[in-house]
Amino acid sequence: MASIVEEFNVYRSKMNEKMLVDNNKIVKRIFNLDTNAFTAGTLPKKTKELLGLGNSMVLRCDDCVRYHLEECHKLGLSKEEVVEAMSISLLIGGTIVIPHLRRAYEYWEALEAQV
Amino acid sequence: MASIVEEFNVYRSKMNEKMLVDNNKIVKRIFNLDTNAFTAGTLPKKTKELLGLGNSMVLRCDDCVRYHLEECHKLGLSKEEVVEAMSISLLIGGTIVIPHLRRAYEYWEALEAQV
Amino acid sequence: MASIVEEFNVYRSKMNEKMLVDNNKIVKRIFNLDTNAFTAGTLPKKTKELLGLGNSMVLRCDDCVRYHLEECHKLGLSKEEVVEAMSISLLIGGTIVIPHLRRAYEYWEALEAQV
Amino acid sequence: MASIVEEFNVYRSKMNEKMLVDNNKIVKRIFNLDTNAFTAGTLPKKTKELLGLGNSMVLRCDDCVRYHLEECHKLGLSKEEVVEAMSISLLIGGTIVIPHLRRAYEYWEALEAQV
Amino acid sequence: MASIVEEFNVYRSKMNEKMLVDNNKIVKRIFNLDTNAFTAGTLPKKTKELLGLGNSMVLRCDDCVRYHLEECHKLGLSKEEVVEAMSISLLIGGTIVIPHLRRAYEYWEALEAQV
Amino acid sequence: MASIVEEFNVYRSKMNEKMLVDNNKIVKRIFNLDTNAFTAGTLPKKTKELLGLGNSMVLRCDDCVRYHLEECHKLGLSKEEVVEAMSISLLIGGTIVIPHLRRAYEYWEALEAQV
Repeated sequence: MASIVEEFNVYRSKMNEKMLVDNNKIVKRIFNLDTNAFTAGTLPKKTKELLGLGNSMVLRCDDCVRYHLEECHKLGLSKEEVVEAMSISLLIGGTIVIPHLRRAYEYWEALEAQV
Repeated sequence: MASIVEEFNVYRSKMNEKMLVDNNKIVKRIFNLDTNAFTAGTLPKKTKELLGLGNSMVLRCDDCVRYHLEECHKLGLSKEEVVEAMSISLLIGGTIVIPHLRRAYEYWEALEAQV
Repeated sequence: MASIVEEFNVYRSKMNEKMLVDNNKIVKRIFNLDTNAFTAGTLPKKTKELLGLGNSMVLRCDDCVRYHLEECHKLGLSKEEVVEAMSISLLIGGTIVIPHLRRAYEYWEALEAQV
Repeated sequence: MASIVEEFNVYRSKMNEKMLVDNNKIVKRIFNLDTNAFTAGTLPKKTKELLGLGNSMVLRCDDCVRYHLEECHKLGLSKEEVVEAMSISLLIGGTIVIPHLRRAYEYWEALEAQV
Repeated sequence: MASIVEEFNVYRSKMNEKMLVDNNKIVKRIFNLDTNAFTAGTLPKKTKELLGLGNSMVLRCDDCVRYHLEECHKLGLSKEEVVEAMSISLLIGGTIVIPHLRRAYEYWEALEAQV
Repeated sequence: MASIVEEFNVYRSKMNEKMLVDNNKIVKRIFNLDTNAFTAGTLPKKTKELLGLGNSMVLRCDDCVRYHLEECHKLGLSKEEVVEAMSISLLIGGTIVIPHLRRAYEYWEALEAQV
């Protein structure tokens, strides 16, 4: 069951590497900013990851949702907290968000199934 | 050929159940509204399903398109009527709608292939 | 009160003319298709205008909403029918549709206030 | 300076009333859910408002941004916290978010200028 | 006639300054990248500005369109070239792009009317 | 490795045929315009394909990206040029564009691996 997590991460790492090797300045800096943006600032890291998750959900980006679900899981956020954040995105983004919510539930389950 | 219909419905039902078991109030109510919104009102049920289909198409949500195609098929809407509705979405939403139209055609064919 | 209708139509006509004078083939053909798409076909004209309205609403295009509200009004669709169509767009598109719904209500009122 | 706040709220209240008077079931329930979704749950109210703000920002809905800025301001969130949340939306949503960020800054300033 | 150009630029500069004074690292770096991205690279500056214009048009961001129209005008791109780029965005993005095209025409006219 | 190219093209051709056989006027004309829009005009064909690519990227349409990558490749555009165009889309469209960039890199590699 945990294999969708592994599969996603293997593909993600492999392709990110190819993109960074290319040395395009904009791509490199955006990647860099992406790492910086989710470190603790005035807002705690947990809030920032929930923001990343919520934003990704209304924009309906499955891979972005997966990435932030994984970070939320690592930080020890509970399923209830994560679902509450996503339910706000469902209300704001409408029922077209539902298919992405289904896939998010599946991914969260896979994260929990990992040892 | 009909298996993409079955596959979609099995996954959809399984994940919807997991989401509803969770008892998040917003999720439950949105699901509830979703059932209510497409019953006959001032507008007939057929018009409402065509609206659901058209809206899903311009928002480029394949799973939502599939769901409404299936409802349209059950209500006895013809392929010509369904295609006419989708062609308006193509014009309004532009050529980025085309890949979703291709998949809609494939799904409709699978619906017709079912006994 | 009816002046937002007039204002919209004057600006729209003036700018459309400037665009068509330019003789860009794609622009001209898209405009042409736009006229054709909403004539009666397998689906009646009223259904097509409701589809145009619903699609415009989930895509959150105020000017497109106004245009289709006006066509709906000319065809004699009732406020209740128009609101029912827009309520489906609200559910599918989420609460970010609300500001556009407010402006649609204002425009419909202006249409009704015209002699 | 505070007048853009007042103007927004007057228009918003007036039109919301007209929409609710109409008694469309979906519209009424979505409005109801909207009130419920931002009360404290597993996540504190402040986090929920930041989520509402962030989601509205990536979806580029100025009126939604204004509404959540106002709620954030009432809850005593600092400008730095609010800007940090919006900066995540800028990174995720890209430079097309910038015009909305400009207007958010203007609105926040107007909120602070109120007595 | 040229006043919509001036108005836009005055507001844009004033608000950008307020945002940059704030010293949020992500905001500052994104602004910085934005300046860098449109300098000549493997692709000439003109092509990059047309890309900025086209992307802004399909994303339906009026302020972004205005900014890139102005850069295109400064670089000496002709109206015909600019319209051709925008017509591709119209086809790809659909008729919901039309209202933004109308406003782009108006802005270009104002740019040409400047001494 | 080249098989994702073949797979995409086989499916695309098969479904396009089914759509065109249906004889819906809007669908046929949009397809027709799509062919016309990318022929050389005031702007050279290469610039037009880069515009098609960039627009598709910010709209996050993988199939559209693939199509334009293939056209760019046929026209002899270099990887560096194509990446530069896509990097502008990344900046304008934000980090939600990243998953589509990963898949674009994979597709370009498959195009280069073809004999």
